[in-house]
Amino acid sequence: MSSSAGEFSPYQDYLNTPILDTINSPRDLKRLNIEQLKCLAEEIRHKIIATASVNGGHLAPHLGVVDLTLAIHYVFETEDDMLVWDVGHQCYAHKLVTGRREQLPMIRKKGGLSGYPKRSESPYDVFGVGHSSTSISAALGMAVARSLSERGGRAIAVIGDGAMTAGMAFEALSHAGHLGTDLIVILNDNNMSISKNVGAVSAYFNRLITNGLYSRARGDLHSFMSRTLGENLTRAAERLEHSVKGFLTPGTMFEALGFRYVGPMDGHDLDTLVECLTNLKKTSGPIFFHCVTKKGKGYTYAEEDPQTYHGVQAFDIGTGKFQSSGGAPAPTFTSAFADALIEAAREDKRIVGITAAMPTGTGLSKFEKEFPDRTFDVGICEQHAVTFAAGLATQGMRPVCAIYSTFLQRAYDQVLHDVCMQKLPVVFAIDRAGAVGEDSPTQQGAFDISFLRSVPNISVLASRDDVDLRLMLRWALQQPGAVAIRYARSKAPTIGPAEGRDITRGEILREGNDATLLALGPVIMSCLAAAEMLQAEGYSVGVADARLAKPVDGDLLERLKGTPIITVEENTLPGGFGAAVMEYFEERGALDELRIKRLGFPDAFLEHATRDEQLADIGLDAAGIACSVRAYLGQRVTQPVR
Amino acid sequence: MSSSAGEFSPYQDYLNTPILDTINSPRDLKRLNIEQLKCLAEEIRHKIIATASVNGGHLAPHLGVVDLTLAIHYVFETEDDMLVWDVGHQCYAHKLVTGRREQLPMIRKKGGLSGYPKRSESPYDVFGVGHSSTSISAALGMAVARSLSERGGRAIAVIGDGAMTAGMAFEALSHAGHLGTDLIVILNDNNMSISKNVGAVSAYFNRLITNGLYSRARGDLHSFMSRTLGENLTRAAERLEHSVKGFLTPGTMFEALGFRYVGPMDGHDLDTLVECLTNLKKTSGPIFFHCVTKKGKGYTYAEEDPQTYHGVQAFDIGTGKFQSSGGAPAPTFTSAFADALIEAAREDKRIVGITAAMPTGTGLSKFEKEFPDRTFDVGICEQHAVTFAAGLATQGMRPVCAIYSTFLQRAYDQVLHDVCMQKLPVVFAIDRAGAVGEDSPTQQGAFDISFLRSVPNISVLASRDDVDLRLMLRWALQQPGAVAIRYARSKAPTIGPAEGRDITRGEILREGNDATLLALGPVIMSCLAAAEMLQAEGYSVGVADARLAKPVDGDLLERLKGTPIITVEENTLPGGFGAAVMEYFEERGALDELRIKRLGFPDAFLEHATRDEQLADIGLDAAGIACSVRAYLGQRVTQPVR
Repeated sequence: MSSSAGEFSPYQDYLNTPILDTINSPRDLKRLNIEQLKCLAEEIRHKIIATASVNGGHLAPHLGVVDLTLAIHYVFETEDDMLVWDVGHQCYAHKLVTGRREQLPMIRKKGGLSGYPKRSESPYDVFGVGHSSTSISAALGMAVARSLSERGGRAIAVIGDGAMTAGMAFEALSHAGHLGTDLIVILNDNNMSISKNVGAVSAYFNRLITNGLYSRARGDLHSFMSRTLGENLTRAAERLEHSVKGFLTPGTMFEALGFRYVGPMDGHDLDTLVECLTNLKKTSGPIFFHCVTKKGKGYTYAEEDPQTYHGVQAFDIGTGKFQSSGGAPAPTFTSAFADALIEAAREDKRIVGITAAMPTGTGLSKFEKEFPDRTFDVGICEQHAVTFAAGLATQGMRPVCAIYSTFLQRAYDQVLHDVCMQKLPVVFAIDRAGAVGEDSPTQQGAFDISFLRSVPNISVLASRDDVDLRLMLRWALQQPGAVAIRYARSKAPTIGPAEGRDITRGEILREGNDATLLALGPVIMSCLAAAEMLQAEGYSVGVADARLAKPVDGDLLERLKGTPIITVEENTLPGGFGAAVMEYFEERGALDELRIKRLGFPDAFLEHATRDEQLADIGLDAAGIACSVRAYLGQRVTQPVR
Repeated sequence: MSSSAGEFSPYQDYLNTPILDTINSPRDLKRLNIEQLKCLAEEIRHKIIATASVNGGHLAPHLGVVDLTLAIHYVFETEDDMLVWDVGHQCYAHKLVTGRREQLPMIRKKGGLSGYPKRSESPYDVFGVGHSSTSISAALGMAVARSLSERGGRAIAVIGDGAMTAGMAFEALSHAGHLGTDLIVILNDNNMSISKNVGAVSAYFNRLITNGLYSRARGDLHSFMSRTLGENLTRAAERLEHSVKGFLTPGTMFEALGFRYVGPMDGHDLDTLVECLTNLKKTSGPIFFHCVTKKGKGYTYAEEDPQTYHGVQAFDIGTGKFQSSGGAPAPTFTSAFADALIEAAREDKRIVGITAAMPTGTGLSKFEKEFPDRTFDVGICEQHAVTFAAGLATQGMRPVCAIYSTFLQRAYDQVLHDVCMQKLPVVFAIDRAGAVGEDSPTQQGAFDISFLRSVPNISVLASRDDVDLRLMLRWALQQPGAVAIRYARSKAPTIGPAEGRDITRGEILREGNDATLLALGPVIMSCLAAAEMLQAEGYSVGVADARLAKPVDGDLLERLKGTPIITVEENTLPGGFGAAVMEYFEERGALDELRIKRLGFPDAFLEHATRDEQLADIGLDAAGIACSVRAYLGQRVTQPVR
């Protein structure tokens, strides 16, 4: 039934979860037998599909690890053993069996469960996450801590093959192998991260699987290995070694790093998983357990197209069709970027596009269709992506690194040390800058203006709409040094006339006598609306697009300084754009002439909610901005200028 | 003679470099025969030893790669082929044969050559560097660019085994193996980075060498391999595989990543090196060439103690003894930190120390002597170091990450995503914050206040002296969340009375009516001296230690706001401490009440010079600070407050 679930449109079935309804903690799993565990797996898949069909969010990755999740909680004592999920977009089954069953319908909604593990949500979420490849480091830290304090408990990291491409995972493996601490790393290998995996590591995993299957055919090694785990592990590994072609024996890389390699195993075969994990539980030292799973397992549409069903909007379970939002979809900043890059690349052969495992999310997959040789997906390797771009730039190419704001945090040093210090012309296309909505606090694009502004030799621009993004990209590709262009995870309606724009300067969009809202990015829409609201109350408030966060447009600032300035940015306030405005005046000994109020993200992490809810919560919607202006102008009346 | 050079104290010999004197570019090498090349290697070692004996700086790493450097320049056309050095502290031989012979005496001195490769210095320095593990990414970018633009030229990355422990190098290997681009990665394996290498990767290299030697004994594989390179490479590799024990065949890890592995080779055997490289030059695809070198080669003292002679102050060539600076050495911040950490760890078993391959530089080697089980050197893996610490902290440990300011840039995301978002109590001991002197612009600690200030849930403190550092560390270890303590690469004399300090608040060290210098860190010494100078001119200038960069001490700021404030920080101005002061007043609607001038690092990269020269150049010595205060007060007289 599992793989044809979609065809029967079995809504009612999906809501019927008799076993799951009895599971309030992983302890409740222990009284189930394996057959019941299999039924539970099915119920959980249904629950996940039904929830995603209404709420949207990640789907395929959650479905792929249901069996593995149950096997781990069944075998280990996860109230004491430490289960660390990598990335975290595969934790729904984990949440369902750790006392959060009732709350699943509110997952990813404001005030509801996070779509990712979160320490404050449950003691079973031992490590919060959202970015990739941290799990082995964290689990190793936990294992070492337990060892030092002579407390028991096993540390288990579950990491995808995509996440294994990141160097940080390799650093942790090397350290773990060196220490020899008890640690179980479970590779959830579905040959996908979000898109199809790339890189030699990924190819290596494929060969492991191929070799493993080959071995299996020869001697039913599969069951042999699960029986002989433990003291016979080495012998099993040695036998494996002789049974496969060449020196690319399964797991050699991990054995070389000091791990015992076990696998590849079918990650959906609960009998074997439970048997293996039971044996591994008794084994000491670092273990690398390689499980092969199918992303989207149990939902036909997701199995067939796991990339599309990685993260979804609401859909019809029976047909797999996504709900139409009605009418032609407005272009997003992402699509505007892709179109602009394609247009520029047609004219300039030096332009190449680089993504770190986000070809679809960044729009580079569209670029790749026309320029396959000029597109580089480097895997989840932001550090390498940026320095690779620097190398390309030294030879006259014009690399464009399309990286989400939150992930560019991983390459801060490479931006600084490899690109900007050498004044190399790399363009950073920073998607998902600002509030990103339902994803976890981990994914918000809240810091890029601040951390990039600290770096010398880079220009930092923000696009308010599709027209600006296109012009900024074209301008950036002509510059002799680094340029970063940030844009939001949102639709990109055109704001103001498209003609005659000079994107190297700010622009006054609306004149005002009482104050000016000086903003960056699409939040300008809300500023215009706020100005309109204030107009009705008798305030004359202007709106200007600052466009540049570094260097700021001094001419614009000089023009505006006659009236109070309220800066508005989708970025944390410390060191952000508003700070840049103050710095500008201070540097000129003219801070006295500035009347300023800064609006932006508070110095805290933004909780998940819709993007609109997030912005409203922190006062960056039209009403909130109007309110701040009103309060500021009111306050200023009582404190006369000079 | 090479290994006994020191014993003969052959100063005159060291200045006699007849062959080197004829080498103005790598083209001049081509007319030498191998014997002459060997003599040249000897001359270059002498030159390097003689220079370091006077100038100080890196020594042992430069000596280890002289033969390799000559072989590469001899075989390749490095005016067109792209030779990328990793880290760069092994580039003296490279500089000597690429037209910079005459300038070597001024290396690392103000206005002289950089101790690292630098693009602006020579066309042969194709990629500037200072941080580790970037070379493969950069060289791959170059190789891809040449391939896309259909220009020839080989890309060669020379990387140490220490640098190979960093995840970024692994990311680049995986991408290179996937692309299959022509690329030569030369592993300069001396089993050291700065200190003895650690981690499973390092152990893996050791096994490669052991296995390689074993093979060699069995069939003179060494010369066999160098003869059969090229089309027979695979066969050679296969033969190797069968000749060594188990499945840990040399290079399997690299073969698994899509590289052809060749080695291990003696990196001092010029005949073989030249032969091998000549063959590799004709081989396509990614090649991994493993050379074993001896750090400090050719200078007995350095060979015997490569860690001490990694970086040196001036020394006597004959005895290897370092010049005494006379009298007992003043304690440095580093040693003050080590002592304070040891003292704290004696009382609290939860405290552990973590370093990323800098046990000596950070002082953790001292800690390790007393607490070997609580010291973790994770290799050049700042990302892993921080998340490993986060994992430890979840289990109640009190990890202290001792990482230089410049290298913490590598872990910005981990500080933010793994530590601060989860409010975990990790202490960051940030050594080398501020100007670091003769090392390259790459190594200056110029950004940490700015990039850490953007992160929520962290306290950022700066120590002005040894007393503060000790108190801050003890306080930090009691906090429920993350604390960063920055301190300088300098001596740490005690400033002001040690008794009665409250390091959670700022402190007024000198009262003044005309203005207050509000500073952080040891630059406070210069502020006090400046205040003294200004006193003589009739200005009454106070000095206060701000101590906290985040959150700022509001009480102190409120007390000081009556007079102009001049902030002084060893950090870049954008988003730095001075910006924090402005933000504080703006947030309270009280920016009008603030009269401020910010002094700090300009928004540019600091060139190498002594630390004192650097600070003087940017006006952060006593005279410079006095000058700025004078100018500001003069200017303020013409613009009366309010």
